[in-house]
Order: sequence, then C-alpha cells, then structure tokens
Amino acid sequence: MTADLTLRERTRRAVRAEIVDAAMDLFLSRGFEATTVEEIAGAAGISRRSYFRYFLNKDEALAEALAATGRTIAQALTERPREEPPWDALRRAFDPLIERTGEPNAAALARLMLERPSLQQGKDTAWLAEIASALEQRLPAGASSLDARALTASAIACLHAAQEQWLEPGDGRDLGTLLTTTMSAVRRFTATTAATTPD
Amino acid sequence: MTADLTLRERTRRAVRAEIVDAAMDLFLSRGFEATTVEEIAGAAGISRRSYFRYFLNKDEALAEALAATGRTIAQALTERPREEPPWDALRRAFDPLIERTGEPNAAALARLMLERPSLQQGKDTAWLAEIASALEQRLPAGASSLDARALTASAIACLHAAQEQWLEPGDGRDLGTLLTTTMSAVRRFTATTAATTPD
Repeated sequence: MTADLTLRERTRRAVRAEIVDAAMDLFLSRGFEATTVEEIAGAAGISRRSYFRYFLNKDEALAEALAATGRTIAQALTERPREEPPWDALRRAFDPLIERTGEPNAAALARLMLERPSLQQGKDTAWLAEIASALEQRLPAGASSLDARALTASAIACLHAAQEQWLEPGDGRDLGTLLTTTMSAVRRFTATTAATTPD
Repeated sequence: MTADLTLRERTRRAVRAEIVDAAMDLFLSRGFEATTVEEIAGAAGISRRSYFRYFLNKDEALAEALAATGRTIAQALTERPREEPPWDALRRAFDPLIERTGEPNAAALARLMLERPSLQQGKDTAWLAEIASALEQRLPAGASSLDARALTASAIACLHAAQEQWLEPGDGRDLGTLLTTTMSAVRRFTATTAATTPD
C-alpha cells in the first residue's frame, strides 16, 4: 500500500507522525495545558504555520496521539509470541503504555481523559478497532470478530479500572501492577467455578 | 434508613421514581426526541410545573432513568442464587435490560447513548458503582473491591460490544443472544489455555 503513495503524501504522513510524537512527549513531560502549539511545532522542527496545515488545534493533536498509542498497542500485540494465550498477550501489549506512566504528567493526562468524555470515547473506539483487529489474527479458528471485540473491550475496561485505582490518592501501586491485578481478576472470576472455589 | 426519612422526603422520592419510570416507558415506546416533558408529567400524574421541581429538563430525567436501570441490574444480581458463578450471575442480572429491548425505541435509545459520550460516561460510572458493589458481596473471600470493579467493567464492556453489534443493520440476533456470545468469549479466551485449545 505504502508504495502506491506519492512522495508528497509520504512526506505528509511522516511530518504528521513527527508532530504527534512531539506532542505526546510534551504532554507527558510538561502537561497538556502547559504545552503550546508553538512548542509542539518547535519540537517537531516545523513552524507554527505548518502545524496548522496538519491540525486545527492542540486537542486534535492529542486525539491523534491517543489513536497512535492504540496502534502501538496493536503492533505490540502482533509481536507477542504466537503460543502466548490471548489474554496474556493483551496484558503485555499494554506495556508500551505502562512504560510511559513514570513520566511527570502521565497521571494528569489520564485524569484529563476522564474529564473529557468525547475524547475518551474517541480514543476507546479507535483502540478497540485497532487492537481487536490484531487480536482476531491470534484467536483460534472459529472465533468471530465479535469475540475479538468483546475480549478487547474487556481488556480496555480492565485498563480503565486499573487507571482509576492508580489515580486514587494513597494507592502506591504502579499502573502495570494494577493492570495485572484487574486482568487476573477477570480471568479468575469469569471461570465457571469461581464462586465455589475457596480462596 | 428509610424509616428516618420525613413523610415529605419519602413522598418526594416516590414522585421522582414515578417520573423516572414514566419517562423511561415513553422513551422506549415513543422515542426520546418525540417525547415531551408534558407527556412525561401527564403519565406520572403530575403537572408540567411539578415536573420542573424534580428535573431541569428531559435530559436530566433520562440520566436518572439510566441510573435507575443500573440499580435494577444490581438488584437482579443480588437476587441471583448464591451458588451461581459470578460471571453467570452478571449475565443474568442484565436480563431486566434485555427484556425491554423488544420495545419500539430501544435501539434508538441505545444509538442515542453512543452519540452522547457524557451521558454514556455518566451512565457507565453509575452502573459500575452500583453493580460492583452488589458483585463484591458474592465474590469469594479475599477478592478485593478492585477485582469486583474489574469484573463489572468487563461485563459492561461485553454489553457495549453486544449492543454495537445489535445496532448493525442485518444482524438478526437479539441483544440477549449477543450478550451471551460476548460474555462467553471473555470466559473462554481469558482462560490460560485458550490459544492452544483447538476449536
């Protein structure tokens, strides 16, 4: 597909990706509110004027950066060993996201999402499509794309539950530990025997 | 608790519940847009003026009706047999919701939610709190409230995946069947062995 693109279009995409990466780096290090369009443009090596040929505003760059994160997760899923069970592969696919939670404004960005339902919904829809599509390739024969969407939506729900706990003041656990906890809970308590198994 | 409430407060709550029930009945039978505040008030046996002592507008009644549905689901969960595994009990707890999907505007209402992220987020937050709290009571000793929230969030995610499929033109399956499919997929593919089990 890429070979069919004109040089102009390939350049355009590369610049767009550059802007999105620069934007996410700044949002995580300095915070979304504190970052200006000028700073994003500067970090991407373009002018403010050029920036506006790609994105209308800062919100649009954030939405695109979030969608790009979904593609990174889907790519990480694709690269997991074929023999790894799907739920474990999904857990590990979130690692690129987890790795960035140590950055100074990672929690602030997660909090911002909760305050902006339409941004959150847009992100979730994009992630669901990207990740479910990658997941479907590794489900056993006979599994449907609805199965893949259900499993992906559950994994994203586990991430949300973990993130909310992570944002609670006083919970010292890191997001990776919390995500392992929520995903393990779903594995354990969806099993038919969960209610009758003594702890 | 209820015994401590004044007669005035008990009356107020009863009227509020009456309005919410009447509103949901009308939204499901005639549609949200087509329903007027006058009709809701009339169906609840109060005046338009009285209506506005309870709710600012129609949207507020819808948000409250959705929250009430979450309480109904939580109540249904509480009433499931103690020995039923949690994931099965959660599936059955959604039955009161499923039962109403045959009503003329049930699909339109589900579609409306997708178009209003803040309404959807408010509903999901309310449902998560109500249902997770009921679920926690039936998880084995040692399970945390985070476990209960993770499992509940996954069940709600399965409902969303089922609803989106249900709204697809041409998919003739009813929502109950689709929800059983999505929840079964999560049970099956979160199991450690899913990837290596032949179908």
